Amino acid sequence: MPKRKKAIVLLSGGLDSTTLIAMAKEEGYLLHALTFCYGQRHHQELEAAKRVAEFFRVQEHRIVDIDLRAFGGSALTGNVDVPKRNTIAPVGEIPVTYVPARNTIFLSYGLAWAEVLGSGDIFIGVNAIDYSGYPDCRPEFIAAYEKMANLATRAAVEEKIPVSIRIPLMYLSKGEIIRTGLSLGVDYSMTMTCYDPSPDGLACGQCDSCLLRKKGFAEAGLSDPLSYRQ
Amino acid sequence: MPKRKKAIVLLSGGLDSTTLIAMAKEEGYLLHALTFCYGQRHHQELEAAKRVAEFFRVQEHRIVDIDLRAFGGSALTGNVDVPKRNTIAPVGEIPVTYVPARNTIFLSYGLAWAEVLGSGDIFIGVNAIDYSGYPDCRPEFIAAYEKMANLATRAAVEEKIPVSIRIPLMYLSKGEIIRTGLSLGVDYSMTMTCYDPSPDGLACGQCDSCLLRKKGFAEAGLSDPLSYRQ
Repeated sequence: MPKRKKAIVLLSGGLDSTTLIAMAKEEGYLLHALTFCYGQRHHQELEAAKRVAEFFRVQEHRIVDIDLRAFGGSALTGNVDVPKRNTIAPVGEIPVTYVPARNTIFLSYGLAWAEVLGSGDIFIGVNAIDYSGYPDCRPEFIAAYEKMANLATRAAVEEKIPVSIRIPLMYLSKGEIIRTGLSLGVDYSMTMTCYDPSPDGLACGQCDSCLLRKKGFAEAGLSDPLSYRQ
Repeated sequence: MPKRKKAIVLLSGGLDSTTLIAMAKEEGYLLHALTFCYGQRHHQELEAAKRVAEFFRVQEHRIVDIDLRAFGGSALTGNVDVPKRNTIAPVGEIPVTYVPARNTIFLSYGLAWAEVLGSGDIFIGVNAIDYSGYPDCRPEFIAAYEKMANLATRAAVEEKIPVSIRIPLMYLSKGEIIRTGLSLGVDYSMTMTCYDPSPDGLACGQCDSCLLRKKGFAEAGLSDPLSYRQ
């Protein structure tokens, strides 16, 4: 029997990365989940990530503390308020929830862990369709990152283990992501998507992320198992 | 008078990065020094970085904790011994002091801070001549990183502030680096290069980094102000 390949999966505990890990499992990978604690305004996202990692019986779940607050510059890590407006950010506008160089930093930690594990496959749940306006979610960014990563590590350069940044959600709509996850047995009640949940874990229902999620369930013709404050 | 440009300078407190910050200052930049605390085996490197930042009167010196130990895989952060052999690592061999994806991670934090500051210029003291065998010190890696970075951030994509990874040491020999630094007023007694200094701050004189430094001073026909154990 051939040895099963290892995958690093960047796991936030939200709807997208939970679907992502289900897709990596379906491909037969041994799962290594990587979650970042980066001064999010709430820890419910971390709790969701732990639930999801357990659900998928990952080989290992590493939670890495990274101090993005040191630099400020985002509503997700600093003192800027998360906007509530009941409308998704207009196309082409980068929202205040943008975190400087976030995916670049996340992928770089993923790259380090992949090298130590002897793996080259890093899964990230970026998406170009229900696009949040983040430059580091675009396919051209991912392609450039992958090219760089293949020049960066001993594993890629000397041991010829190519780095592949896997983006299976890139061209799926939110509805398609949800339908894919459900077909793979995902229970979305364990996920947490909201940028600003209440202390008792209720999603706000009004931030960009909640709005996209609601739209996705509506598109898929399904009901969302999550409780919203409104 | 035109506004002075800001530079991020990755500063370890060693010989190379100290020369680097002197060169950035000479170009007229406002200096923002960025140092990483990443489970080095000693804190004398951090103390040296603080002395250097003070010497150059930087605008700001940020010391960021990053947990590379979480992944292991290097003599600099894990349980592997730093080799002592009185010979520099053979060309083409990547030494055990290699840290997985280190420069990729360092540059990514630099990129985040640059964006928050409205700067695009990130200085890193990599070198291809007295090459330590690290894949992430090569010019082709830096070029690919720069290309990726220009697709990664709001500042680069929307505000058209190009990211430039500045590598003025790349093609200088160790002797040339030292002569350049001295011509710019660097006092090398404040730097710390050794991978494995004693608790009282004496360099070992035998690790790759000490050997390269000694060779550099010898080439430059100068005496090293640093004390060695042997």
